[in-house]
Amino acid sequence: MTFEPAGRRVNCPPGTTILDAARSAGLRLVSACGGQGTCGKCRVLVLPPGPAGPDEQALLDAGDLGRGYRLACRASVDRDLMVWVSRQEGEPPPPAEDSLPLPAVPPGGLDGVPVAAWHDLSLKPPDRLEPLADATRILNCLREDHGLDVEGLDPAAARVLPPLPRAAAVRGREVIAFSPRPGRIPAGMAVDLGTTRIAVYLVDLRDGQLLAAAAVGNPQSWYGADVISRLTHALQGPDGMVELQTAAQQGIRVATGIACSLAGIGPGDILEASLVGNTVMHHLLLGLPVDRLAVSPFVPVVAHPLLPRARELGLETAPGARAFLPPPIAGYVGSDHLALLEVLELRRLPGNHLAIDVGTNTEVTLKTAGGRLLTCSCASGPAFEGAHIRHGMRAAPGAVERVRIDAVTGRAEVTTVLAEPPVGIAGTGILEAVTELRTAGLLGPSGGLVDGPGVRRGPDGKREYLLTASEEGDLVVTQQDVQEVLLAKGAIRAGIEILLGEAGVKALDLDGCWVAGAFGTRLDPAMAVRVGMFPAIPGERFRAVGNAAGAGARLLLVFPARRLAAEALASQIEYLELGGHPTFAERFTSSLALP
Amino acid sequence: MTFEPAGRRVNCPPGTTILDAARSAGLRLVSACGGQGTCGKCRVLVLPPGPAGPDEQALLDAGDLGRGYRLACRASVDRDLMVWVSRQEGEPPPPAEDSLPLPAVPPGGLDGVPVAAWHDLSLKPPDRLEPLADATRILNCLREDHGLDVEGLDPAAARVLPPLPRAAAVRGREVIAFSPRPGRIPAGMAVDLGTTRIAVYLVDLRDGQLLAAAAVGNPQSWYGADVISRLTHALQGPDGMVELQTAAQQGIRVATGIACSLAGIGPGDILEASLVGNTVMHHLLLGLPVDRLAVSPFVPVVAHPLLPRARELGLETAPGARAFLPPPIAGYVGSDHLALLEVLELRRLPGNHLAIDVGTNTEVTLKTAGGRLLTCSCASGPAFEGAHIRHGMRAAPGAVERVRIDAVTGRAEVTTVLAEPPVGIAGTGILEAVTELRTAGLLGPSGGLVDGPGVRRGPDGKREYLLTASEEGDLVVTQQDVQEVLLAKGAIRAGIEILLGEAGVKALDLDGCWVAGAFGTRLDPAMAVRVGMFPAIPGERFRAVGNAAGAGARLLLVFPARRLAAEALASQIEYLELGGHPTFAERFTSSLALP
Repeated sequence: MTFEPAGRRVNCPPGTTILDAARSAGLRLVSACGGQGTCGKCRVLVLPPGPAGPDEQALLDAGDLGRGYRLACRASVDRDLMVWVSRQEGEPPPPAEDSLPLPAVPPGGLDGVPVAAWHDLSLKPPDRLEPLADATRILNCLREDHGLDVEGLDPAAARVLPPLPRAAAVRGREVIAFSPRPGRIPAGMAVDLGTTRIAVYLVDLRDGQLLAAAAVGNPQSWYGADVISRLTHALQGPDGMVELQTAAQQGIRVATGIACSLAGIGPGDILEASLVGNTVMHHLLLGLPVDRLAVSPFVPVVAHPLLPRARELGLETAPGARAFLPPPIAGYVGSDHLALLEVLELRRLPGNHLAIDVGTNTEVTLKTAGGRLLTCSCASGPAFEGAHIRHGMRAAPGAVERVRIDAVTGRAEVTTVLAEPPVGIAGTGILEAVTELRTAGLLGPSGGLVDGPGVRRGPDGKREYLLTASEEGDLVVTQQDVQEVLLAKGAIRAGIEILLGEAGVKALDLDGCWVAGAFGTRLDPAMAVRVGMFPAIPGERFRAVGNAAGAGARLLLVFPARRLAAEALASQIEYLELGGHPTFAERFTSSLALP
Repeated sequence: MTFEPAGRRVNCPPGTTILDAARSAGLRLVSACGGQGTCGKCRVLVLPPGPAGPDEQALLDAGDLGRGYRLACRASVDRDLMVWVSRQEGEPPPPAEDSLPLPAVPPGGLDGVPVAAWHDLSLKPPDRLEPLADATRILNCLREDHGLDVEGLDPAAARVLPPLPRAAAVRGREVIAFSPRPGRIPAGMAVDLGTTRIAVYLVDLRDGQLLAAAAVGNPQSWYGADVISRLTHALQGPDGMVELQTAAQQGIRVATGIACSLAGIGPGDILEASLVGNTVMHHLLLGLPVDRLAVSPFVPVVAHPLLPRARELGLETAPGARAFLPPPIAGYVGSDHLALLEVLELRRLPGNHLAIDVGTNTEVTLKTAGGRLLTCSCASGPAFEGAHIRHGMRAAPGAVERVRIDAVTGRAEVTTVLAEPPVGIAGTGILEAVTELRTAGLLGPSGGLVDGPGVRRGPDGKREYLLTASEEGDLVVTQQDVQEVLLAKGAIRAGIEILLGEAGVKALDLDGCWVAGAFGTRLDPAMAVRVGMFPAIPGERFRAVGNAAGAGARLLLVFPARRLAAEALASQIEYLELGGHPTFAERFTSSLALP
């Protein structure tokens, strides 16, 4: 079973409770009664949920039970479960701020008015002599008291019209929600729908201020870790498609629920959404056919911006709220990358710049001094996210993220996330281990481990490097781990070189290299240059920009004018399909080696 | 149990098959095998459906079984079933044409272009060098080959994008459907959602020509015969609301399916819908709260025109098709009445005119020579639809529709629908019976039956009039039947008089009286004047206009400009709530008497 959002995999004997499994995994769940099944505080989301026992039925409400909430002290580990832990004891709230702040809102707002807003109502009851419809009296009030040119309302909003509405939410010329109380916050929701992680940001639509943020593992992971296995599952038949669509919707709803409770608002306060993600995530959430994404030339079904009702995507929002989905750029370059480019304002930067978002697929865009925009996607694999690595894990507490190896003793000095005792190796940790092993002479130029201090034979008889030793278990770097890292960094480097070659730009002429994503933020660029993942440009030209896709989604949520700019940007991008590129094979092979 | 659409109620001993029950009710179902369960031809829709037996599972496909289709020779009458008989042996196709023809389409169309249309596509496959999204290539083709200014597509259409689309349906600037074959008919669907009957008309959107029509009983009847009992059911809780919404959707889908098979098209050919109905039907279909419609002053939630996706109403159409719902006028004057006024072009007629749609609620509009439009709704009850009348039935074959009574012998000469042997009394039949009984001196001025030829004592000891005698059973007119007719005609007359009084128009100054609806079409205006239902104006000023609401729905479907006209019309109407009118009680009492 796996604990989300940390992504910790745990093996337990059948019958172990989830609470005990969490303890053995080093997670401290809140439990006031000590596992007696009486306090209800160890509530977790279980996928797929088993039948609820009597304590669970007594302590959890029907809605929560239906959504899959169970008590960790009562539910047992009897299958390959995913368990979402919304809050650990003593844990700080989920990471909130992106490192790229949104642009300040000029007085009066960037576009004059927020994309949607609440307006307080003072209505008279209906009158025998003039029995006007509820909606007619409300629209009259919006026109007369607020000067709004409102012409209609969404039937879904009318369905839940309270007997005496005190506020109406208006988007454009349409009423999209009603509320029985006045003075509500006009909230918006930006969603970064990642393959492994779903992040939800709640903002105030009036000024873009962050209200709360929450992230959960993408429940689709249950059907496969990467986009290829998700595609395979979707193409097995209509059920697979629906399962993946439902899982993504469920994940977004869970994250929305957590963010709402942190912000002290309800989903009904959310008047607008924006959503970015890679093209497979985008298509699966929309229920679009994905067969074209599985075969060359990997064309999306839709590469237009879309603005459906949020409810049509299974999101929990105000009834008539809309969700803006920026266009995907190509089959393997999604709207998350477009959002990143838009929030960086890459087009406006003078000189040559690279923007890189490292993930299972690493998207790279080169903006040239001449104004060209070239984009490609590199199949870098999930090594930097901790998958396919013997002791890999995400950058959760206890993950090794920095490694220094003494060339003489062969001993490693490691740094872990939050300085917890080491329990696994994060993406930066495995990259640094490979870099340092090469410098220490323990790796050959093709990545073969050689005998030397710290290198031993594993149980399979193959060489492995002992990174840390402890009573809880050693952490090692295997020969296979090294190969995964080389494939990943080689793919990224090959993509960068092909873009530079196409545009005739030399690496040293790059004025900036913007590295996005969780891995990019923790990455030491000097290490990435030493291992050959990035070209050798001066360290100060690298800039980590955090979850720029999430920041971009927030930007596009709050500022409608930037939606048009992003659409224009998408149409300017020249997409290069690496699979069909004549020099790719050669570039890739030469990029695999260690400098 | 009840057979629809004829509305024939049948009592049978438990265990009787539906096929036998139909025979005993005089309905000849198609059955090639004579009830052996081998031909599958006696397929009927049963609500609520029981479990399917082995013959049914062998002969019906899973979809039909799920929708409630069963074999009449295998399903037995064990509950209060409703059974839809889509086609009887030897029966002509359902009534198709409305008596009001649509306006001819001027060359080039009334609005230049149909509201939605199919366009054939010739697409190139995606290209490795320029891997454009499917939708992008399609929109390019629509722009380049067809000169269309298309900017987006409905995600629901993209969800079912065929691998090689050969046609795209465009509405406004949006693609709403795709087809793997070219040359399709752009069909539209007009729905008249009545309390007792649902009529669906399929038309060609290019010229308004009728492709097919079909009608079924409204499945909501299972929860109550009239709008008041439907409201009561809806207000019992959220389940009741959902049941009624689902029943209406199911009825529309069944009628759509029949009409499509008659027209030889599929629901996916339907690119636009329009839907009219009374305000309760309108609100229930949309899922809008109906509590306000149950209490004075009877205000609708929404009195705006709506244009949701047809799929949001549970209609089966092309994926992105929209449904136009004209605005209701008041709580008890629906969009069906507005459609009637619009198709009559009442506003343009010189002089004073009445438009009357007789039903359980009878809507009356007075258009004055000065251009005022006054509307009211009369609670006339279901007597003229055959309900609350001992031997009442709808105007199906065998229903008595004309009655002449010999004042000397007291014997009645009756005419039945399609000259079949009499099996019940239609609305016009009961109205004529009361009129003739009064003329024959067998009814007093307040409607009391008096002793005389033809009047006998019923089993309850009360007087009743023997209309026809036969071995199958006598048809009688009871004292209670007479009271129902008097209440109905009195309510209508009171409404007419109040409108005339408000506007200061004398009855003899009426230049036209337009009578709509199935009952109105069969009604002899001279009889209606004699019984005091209508004021005494010359017979030639009456005009029966058939199902003008259905004709109006077709008009609004095909001609978008008339939608705006109808909206303007709705805003001009002065609605009079009779319940709150100071002279209503007096007018009603004086209208009850027989002249």
